[in-house]
Amino acid sequence: MKVGIVGASGYTGLELVRILQMHPQVKLELLTSESYVGKKLNEIYPSLGLNFNMELEEFHCDKALDRCDILFLALPHGYSSEIARRGYDNNKLIIDLGADFRLKELENYTNWYKTEHKAPHLLKEAVYGLPEIYSEQIKGAKIIANPGCYPTSAILGLAPLFSNKIIEYKGLIIDSKSGISGAGRKANAITHFNSASDNINPYGVGEHRHTPEIEQELSFVAGNQVTITFTPQLVPINRGILSTCYATLTKDISEDDIRQIYDDFYKDKPFVGILPEGTWPHTKWVAGSNKCLLNFKVDKRNNRIVVASVIDNLIKGASGQAVQNMNIALGLEETTALDILTVYP
Amino acid sequence: MKVGIVGASGYTGLELVRILQMHPQVKLELLTSESYVGKKLNEIYPSLGLNFNMELEEFHCDKALDRCDILFLALPHGYSSEIARRGYDNNKLIIDLGADFRLKELENYTNWYKTEHKAPHLLKEAVYGLPEIYSEQIKGAKIIANPGCYPTSAILGLAPLFSNKIIEYKGLIIDSKSGISGAGRKANAITHFNSASDNINPYGVGEHRHTPEIEQELSFVAGNQVTITFTPQLVPINRGILSTCYATLTKDISEDDIRQIYDDFYKDKPFVGILPEGTWPHTKWVAGSNKCLLNFKVDKRNNRIVVASVIDNLIKGASGQAVQNMNIALGLEETTALDILTVYP
Amino acid sequence: MKVGIVGASGYTGLELVRILQMHPQVKLELLTSESYVGKKLNEIYPSLGLNFNMELEEFHCDKALDRCDILFLALPHGYSSEIARRGYDNNKLIIDLGADFRLKELENYTNWYKTEHKAPHLLKEAVYGLPEIYSEQIKGAKIIANPGCYPTSAILGLAPLFSNKIIEYKGLIIDSKSGISGAGRKANAITHFNSASDNINPYGVGEHRHTPEIEQELSFVAGNQVTITFTPQLVPINRGILSTCYATLTKDISEDDIRQIYDDFYKDKPFVGILPEGTWPHTKWVAGSNKCLLNFKVDKRNNRIVVASVIDNLIKGASGQAVQNMNIALGLEETTALDILTVYP
Amino acid sequence: MKVGIVGASGYTGLELVRILQMHPQVKLELLTSESYVGKKLNEIYPSLGLNFNMELEEFHCDKALDRCDILFLALPHGYSSEIARRGYDNNKLIIDLGADFRLKELENYTNWYKTEHKAPHLLKEAVYGLPEIYSEQIKGAKIIANPGCYPTSAILGLAPLFSNKIIEYKGLIIDSKSGISGAGRKANAITHFNSASDNINPYGVGEHRHTPEIEQELSFVAGNQVTITFTPQLVPINRGILSTCYATLTKDISEDDIRQIYDDFYKDKPFVGILPEGTWPHTKWVAGSNKCLLNFKVDKRNNRIVVASVIDNLIKGASGQAVQNMNIALGLEETTALDILTVYP
Repeated sequence: MKVGIVGASGYTGLELVRILQMHPQVKLELLTSESYVGKKLNEIYPSLGLNFNMELEEFHCDKALDRCDILFLALPHGYSSEIARRGYDNNKLIIDLGADFRLKELENYTNWYKTEHKAPHLLKEAVYGLPEIYSEQIKGAKIIANPGCYPTSAILGLAPLFSNKIIEYKGLIIDSKSGISGAGRKANAITHFNSASDNINPYGVGEHRHTPEIEQELSFVAGNQVTITFTPQLVPINRGILSTCYATLTKDISEDDIRQIYDDFYKDKPFVGILPEGTWPHTKWVAGSNKCLLNFKVDKRNNRIVVASVIDNLIKGASGQAVQNMNIALGLEETTALDILTVYP
Repeated sequence: MKVGIVGASGYTGLELVRILQMHPQVKLELLTSESYVGKKLNEIYPSLGLNFNMELEEFHCDKALDRCDILFLALPHGYSSEIARRGYDNNKLIIDLGADFRLKELENYTNWYKTEHKAPHLLKEAVYGLPEIYSEQIKGAKIIANPGCYPTSAILGLAPLFSNKIIEYKGLIIDSKSGISGAGRKANAITHFNSASDNINPYGVGEHRHTPEIEQELSFVAGNQVTITFTPQLVPINRGILSTCYATLTKDISEDDIRQIYDDFYKDKPFVGILPEGTWPHTKWVAGSNKCLLNFKVDKRNNRIVVASVIDNLIKGASGQAVQNMNIALGLEETTALDILTVYP
Repeated sequence: MKVGIVGASGYTGLELVRILQMHPQVKLELLTSESYVGKKLNEIYPSLGLNFNMELEEFHCDKALDRCDILFLALPHGYSSEIARRGYDNNKLIIDLGADFRLKELENYTNWYKTEHKAPHLLKEAVYGLPEIYSEQIKGAKIIANPGCYPTSAILGLAPLFSNKIIEYKGLIIDSKSGISGAGRKANAITHFNSASDNINPYGVGEHRHTPEIEQELSFVAGNQVTITFTPQLVPINRGILSTCYATLTKDISEDDIRQIYDDFYKDKPFVGILPEGTWPHTKWVAGSNKCLLNFKVDKRNNRIVVASVIDNLIKGASGQAVQNMNIALGLEETTALDILTVYP
Repeated sequence: MKVGIVGASGYTGLELVRILQMHPQVKLELLTSESYVGKKLNEIYPSLGLNFNMELEEFHCDKALDRCDILFLALPHGYSSEIARRGYDNNKLIIDLGADFRLKELENYTNWYKTEHKAPHLLKEAVYGLPEIYSEQIKGAKIIANPGCYPTSAILGLAPLFSNKIIEYKGLIIDSKSGISGAGRKANAITHFNSASDNINPYGVGEHRHTPEIEQELSFVAGNQVTITFTPQLVPINRGILSTCYATLTKDISEDDIRQIYDDFYKDKPFVGILPEGTWPHTKWVAGSNKCLLNFKVDKRNNRIVVASVIDNLIKGASGQAVQNMNIALGLEETTALDILTVYP
């Protein structure tokens, strides 16, 4: 299978390249970029090794579809829908790491992303690529909407509780902290070392575009309309998201029973781990891996559960999950090229 | 006025020394330490300057009370109550940076701190040293219980809302993030650079000893029993706390009106600033200063307010606030030795 | 005395503002900026405090000279010479934090900075503003060329050795490490958090423009043509430079005698400290202060001395030193507004 | 082949475990620890994955030699020599990550390490495990002295120059900067986050124990007694060493010719890369990999070459190199389990 990465010079593009070059069943065929056409990717990222010799090419949709069986789209929102439409018509596998196919309701998309959608008829065709929930639908899918980084961490933390109907639908709180790579490779006042280091801050409180995505997916799991308050925050780490989630319990249930619910839900899921009681997840334990680590605590006085969930935002929150989706879509072993440990410390 | 610092070799001790040596109306008379008797403080902290020549002495309560008019106690909990009792009997000003006089109910103290209190009769005598709320009581006080770092950030964020009775009493959420200096100068697996850097993690969820302190003080302001869910988290910064607080609004109120409430509440408070709409506080903007910066947002869909509040945990969250309390207690200008800007970036 | 800062929105501009607003004998009259005209400086830097209300204005040379007695120029090289010329003609005090007046030889300037100099006749008039060496010349000076950050650290480390003629003139090695703020406020691939954090790297080896400046000044002290190999390196700290200097000893001399040489040289210099034997300087001990800390070691086997010197690149390496120069030039106490300790940790 | 790791709970032990569990031709049989007997290694390091189930055992030499074909010793100096002696007598492969077999001269060892050597007769038997120089001797070796981290970076940078006799033997300067993990897992005042972060400092100048090791090995390559001045420095990164080396050229030679010398020397060496002209190595480009990246510059005015070399101190500087040595000793492919890219950023 020949693979193309459209938008290969950003951080998620780089991660796709790094992971896929270890993949025994696919071949990197095409890397495209807008700003670096003609450059080798390892000129921008020497971490790829001095022998890496693929060049970044200009993107031409027809040629890309000619040369590749699979396209990963690592583009800003608004740029993927047209490419996905044409890929779909050509029976290619499209994995979109952007937001164009995540929201099922067109209105939701246009409201939050303030742009026209170029292939609204495919919104229902696309599968939301969170394999721990949708693995059946991902098998054989043609358009996979790879989840956002914050949604991945939050949904993995809360889905078992909704699935077992032990928490209220309305008014959950998701307090998330993200490493700076979540802001992308673009240099600006926010990502400047001297602004970001030794600092933490909230941003876009109540306005972040991952809000409707989290609500949509939790609502599907819950079978009811879920609403959340979502607060994203920047912390001075390279990679990682910690989502601390607060939900009200609808019944009197022991921590042991809740632990059993988590264990059952993630029984055959190779990338999600429930930590032992009292051990809270550290982002550093998953950085560089495709894992999600979880734990929780019941606050009896307030009849509430606190769930903490960590992922690497660029791997399980983006490129690793995209490859996991590809593996499942193609009927390969889910963990291929992804069974890699965190380099610690 | 002659000042002694009991426990001067820790981070809060160092900050007291740094601030007080700039204070025109007091004289540093005594620095004590358990582990470093006979050493000069600048041998441990060359940042104090090579000419700083005060030695760390062994602590003897009688001698300390003889030599000093004011004692700052920067000790682990359980060590201050006896000293405070004797200071009180000798009519000295005692400012306790530990937890021994923060909780008004003895039972609360023994339950959470698992130790006997040596001067329970003074619990009601002690004033909780949050000057933005208790400045009248602090004037002329003899025992001042300097607030914890997390409580300072959370209470300053929420007090105006309770004071104006616009939020519910039960089930607030306080999601706090602290820099590593909050864990103190002690070297251990948690404070090791390689564990702490490039990492974030929750700890002690639902079990942190600042919980009853926050609840007590918010209840006083609210005139009703407040309950909270409190989640402390470590972030890889030197100094700073960000508390993100979530409360349910009890009435339909505009953001403008809430802003007015904050402005009124902190009108004459030199160390608290309300940021302009849309500007979220950064810990780096207050590190090295005695300031607290705040902002908030109403989440209408969930009828909820999100408040974010930042302080320097070692200054407004400890030693700076202690000096502010001393200034007020002695009838000096509140800002003396504290009117200093953050060194940025 | 009324002070103007031309180029106030960069890091050195901000530091000048922060320091000068504490200065009892001058008044901030004018702040200019190219990109932020009409904004208040605390909109860009809320660390200045919410009550700071000076606006950034467009720069007009005539008006600036009309309104101000003293101009600090915090501009890229090439922009100061014309302003300095007109300031000089108007008998104002000009303190240039850029490079336009540091090199005494016009050819040296044009070779290294690849730009025409607009006031070459003033090169000899300008005083190199390293107060530990040139305090006599700085008194009453009209144009002060504030030294570069690397040169300040290196020259302070080596000058006593040259002054006492105990090291060779040729082939010194200066291996310097700078915090990221040395690269300025401009956001680019180098200053991006994800590039700079958890990383160290050399840059511009053998080509850095501070090379001729260091050589010029060491040659003046030595009374002979000094040559150096200079290697700048970026380290992931906010502020600070460590220069590790290697020189060959010309005579058999004990460490005690060398220590005496340093002590004598810096006897009345309030900002330079020689650490005790065996204590090597940490940049964190001087960050936020105008200090320079030094130590050295003789490597007998190679007949060589190793000197390590640390400063805060934005203070002693830029804005603090500029204010120190202003103080001396005006006949004020040298330490006014600068006698401030590092906030540690 | 069954492998034991003696001292598995430190950082180099963890890295050995992480790398060797990916190795197709060996089986992890035994992990020992002094402080954590009975604990699973993933209780200390959850980054290993929740399914990792090997327990740390007490070390008994006989049993260890019974159960294992290969022992990696990750112990403080002084603890390996006796174990190595008995392993040698039992015809096992011993790879010592400590210092006991690095120095060929017993006197050198006792002078610098201040301890008695328990198997001096094996000093000449042991092979210095720098595969880029000694691959022939490593094949079939029984005791491999794995090089120190600083020596690895410095020797790889300088060996080609000595091998081609283009630099002087006496008085080289090696200015090295190490990440904090080089100080090990032990928590102390130096490794505390608040001391180490946002800070750089030299330490042990002229006294570091890697000095004789670097001199010994460079002398072997040069065929002459080499002397160095070595300055180690701590920088706030997790992993990585940058060694900046300064040598005097003995002949007039172009940069192109020198580049050819490097290319030839490292032609078939999979882990060493020479960067293109003008691209200086970043430690972040090699963190997490077994690579060494190099570049150099000639300073003509001073007839000197500046070489910069980066490695990951825990991989190429310790555990990765140890596995590389094992691979070569056993006649396996040199890159087995080591052909892994840096996770960037």
